[in-house]
Amino acid sequence: MNNSQTIQIIGAGLCGSLLALRLGQRGFNVEVFEKRPDLRKVDLSAGRSINLAFSNRGIKAMNLVGLQHKVKPLCIPMYGRMLHDLEGNTTLSPYSGRENEYINSISRNDLNALLLEEAEALANVTIHFNHKCTAVDFENTSSTFYKYENKTEYSRKADVIIGTDGAGSVLRKSYYLGKKFLFSFSQDYLTHGYKELTILPKENGDYKTFKNALHIWGRDAFMLIALPNLDGSFTVTLFLNYDDGEYNFNNLTSENQVRAFFSTYFKDALELMPNLVEDFFKNPTSPLGTVKCSPWHYKGNTLLLGDAAHAIVPFYGQGMNASFEDITEFDALLDKEYNNWESLFKAFESSRKKDTDAIADLAIDNFHEMKGHVNQAIFREKRNLEMAFEKTFPDLYASKYALVTFNENIGYRQAMLRGRAQDKAILNMLADGDITMPLNITDRTWLEETLKQVQIETDNILEEDRVAKNMHH
Amino acid sequence: MNNSQTIQIIGAGLCGSLLALRLGQRGFNVEVFEKRPDLRKVDLSAGRSINLAFSNRGIKAMNLVGLQHKVKPLCIPMYGRMLHDLEGNTTLSPYSGRENEYINSISRNDLNALLLEEAEALANVTIHFNHKCTAVDFENTSSTFYKYENKTEYSRKADVIIGTDGAGSVLRKSYYLGKKFLFSFSQDYLTHGYKELTILPKENGDYKTFKNALHIWGRDAFMLIALPNLDGSFTVTLFLNYDDGEYNFNNLTSENQVRAFFSTYFKDALELMPNLVEDFFKNPTSPLGTVKCSPWHYKGNTLLLGDAAHAIVPFYGQGMNASFEDITEFDALLDKEYNNWESLFKAFESSRKKDTDAIADLAIDNFHEMKGHVNQAIFREKRNLEMAFEKTFPDLYASKYALVTFNENIGYRQAMLRGRAQDKAILNMLADGDITMPLNITDRTWLEETLKQVQIETDNILEEDRVAKNMHH
Repeated sequence: MNNSQTIQIIGAGLCGSLLALRLGQRGFNVEVFEKRPDLRKVDLSAGRSINLAFSNRGIKAMNLVGLQHKVKPLCIPMYGRMLHDLEGNTTLSPYSGRENEYINSISRNDLNALLLEEAEALANVTIHFNHKCTAVDFENTSSTFYKYENKTEYSRKADVIIGTDGAGSVLRKSYYLGKKFLFSFSQDYLTHGYKELTILPKENGDYKTFKNALHIWGRDAFMLIALPNLDGSFTVTLFLNYDDGEYNFNNLTSENQVRAFFSTYFKDALELMPNLVEDFFKNPTSPLGTVKCSPWHYKGNTLLLGDAAHAIVPFYGQGMNASFEDITEFDALLDKEYNNWESLFKAFESSRKKDTDAIADLAIDNFHEMKGHVNQAIFREKRNLEMAFEKTFPDLYASKYALVTFNENIGYRQAMLRGRAQDKAILNMLADGDITMPLNITDRTWLEETLKQVQIETDNILEEDRVAKNMHH
Repeated sequence: MNNSQTIQIIGAGLCGSLLALRLGQRGFNVEVFEKRPDLRKVDLSAGRSINLAFSNRGIKAMNLVGLQHKVKPLCIPMYGRMLHDLEGNTTLSPYSGRENEYINSISRNDLNALLLEEAEALANVTIHFNHKCTAVDFENTSSTFYKYENKTEYSRKADVIIGTDGAGSVLRKSYYLGKKFLFSFSQDYLTHGYKELTILPKENGDYKTFKNALHIWGRDAFMLIALPNLDGSFTVTLFLNYDDGEYNFNNLTSENQVRAFFSTYFKDALELMPNLVEDFFKNPTSPLGTVKCSPWHYKGNTLLLGDAAHAIVPFYGQGMNASFEDITEFDALLDKEYNNWESLFKAFESSRKKDTDAIADLAIDNFHEMKGHVNQAIFREKRNLEMAFEKTFPDLYASKYALVTFNENIGYRQAMLRGRAQDKAILNMLADGDITMPLNITDRTWLEETLKQVQIETDNILEEDRVAKNMHH
């Protein structure tokens, strides 16, 4: 596409600032509008989503814009899940049997600041903070902005408008309310909400618990997790039902109840959080929702990207990674010969949406896996077997988690289909006694034979689904 | 519940008028508000959804209100699908191997008129036509209505408000826009729309083609269907993409194009429709959408029922039947001991939603089946085998279609799970050569042995899914 055009970007969060940087690198005139103040100057965290899981698909996008070396120092490797049981015993369950496969904890703010810095350094990129988009006229490729500074409103046209304005996207809302075309849309809330808490550093600045893991206290009906920050603290998140169960967000209204809840279910975590009660009542409880929609674009005028097009729940640690992958894939299409933006947008959605739909569904699956299944014997046996496969035959096997997280050259949908079939194969072979775990799981001959069986059964499952899908797609 | 209460019903379509009748029979004070004029006095059809498929789940509701004998004369039995190929050759594919299992074509208008008549005959039911609901204050259980007659607006309170106001429900919209609770919601449009056409009767009033079938001209990318009316005509519906393919709704803009399209793909239908072109340009093109949402109720104040809660595409002929089944199931809960409406509404949604979600998905599957799969050899072999099972062992086998359509005592979700597993089993056994269709398919010994294999394989599939679902529900 002709890079003398002006691209307007609504929203300078992680997705919008990366997009601005990349389009700026390609020479487009880029105008970014962000409703909040500049996060490099003001603390905006307000107790929400302080750190994030960052992995291969996100790293690939950093490579694209040449920021891999600047991002690296912001990352804290997490090699596995540190499972905490009711008594406070811990087990490290690695994310992969391959040593180079791990995820990272990263500060949303630090990463966003880096991306803004790099984008703003380009002469052809301008970023306007404190500009709230109030409506998008997608027919005329024009947005209206409210300027907080002087309380005035004005409109701004562009050749193309891209909405990276997150789960509550104003551009998406204008599609829905405009009723000018058939707009498929869904918002799905879990019955659980979340609240962020903190494990502060020791007085000497050290971490109070093991730094290089994602800590999980899975209690079936609810769970607590913790991710490390660079300053020695951990950001802790409680996922809990709003109104079902003995303890829920609606009935945890007194300090005593909160302490009783934590001392019953998260005893060892409570010991690390003398500040628990204060955090609990200070920080907001937020909902967990999935947003899907289609079409993402209106003609060649406007396009939704990132959470604005496909917000997901956080349980696969893929929200930011999926948004970054949007940009990698969108960027790849800019190298191809499209006659106009409309055909490029159409091609983008048609190749990309199947993958963002898949990660949305996987993220919900993983909620159930994290809060409960990790504790089940059959699940642990499956994980042990998969780790042994990955360790012994690193080129021959990748678990569903590895396919999704560490295989950035496979789309999410492909990862989901193969990963689910593998899970189904192994779980059924374990349940049927077709696999009996030996005392010595590192026995190479046994592992090789078992892997062969798992692969045959996985292929069978995929083939049987394929035959049946001819009927119900 | 205490029947001295006043129940307000928004919408007097099929679902609302049946609900009014049933609640009236139970002694409640029922006030119904309908935005359109009384359809017994004014012709409202305007070329949309003139007739509907009516089957066991709907009939069960008619039995509940004692109308089975009055409905019967309105019904035209359809014993199977009459498949029309490109050359105009026809094959009747029965809906069941059991003789008493068939579906019916019924006039939406006639059935709605009957229900209104019966409801209005009750002293405790009043129906207000030309009253358009403009908003529902669900917190205060009060609706606002616009009266077309004198162009005034007024509010009306009730003990309970039930929204049976269809796919475009105002009550549902008030949940969405009110943002007082987490409201999960989806609207999903197919890329196909539909347009109704007509095969008029012969001059002597006879049917121009076989009366007792649902006619299908399936052409993979699009299809035409026809259902009989009591007056000798057929209502024909064209399902076609809006903008993809050689012919689509957007490019069929001239009489010649419409004639060329029909003479290429629906030659024998065209011969029965000298009025085609006129109908085509007179009648609207309408979208095909699925609506799901949750919760259906707000506290014990308001409840969505029928299409307002779960609008589906028409391809399983279950839209009206599902709405009527809502009422049968809601009515059954009124016999139980609930302390308040809120707990009754909660129990209703929690047992009912899984079934309406299932029929929504089944209806989309059936779109693909009707327009394409019915023509595939493997699908025809499966149907032949299933018909032979049902004919020879009527108590031992029911196809997915029969489970959904003729087994009103099995929920849609159960029907879907078992039906899909059976389809998968048979299709894979055919594809793998585990079943080879004999020349004489009525051979009882072969059929018995084959049925046994199918049942074992079906149970295997269900069990394997169950084991795997422990991971991703």
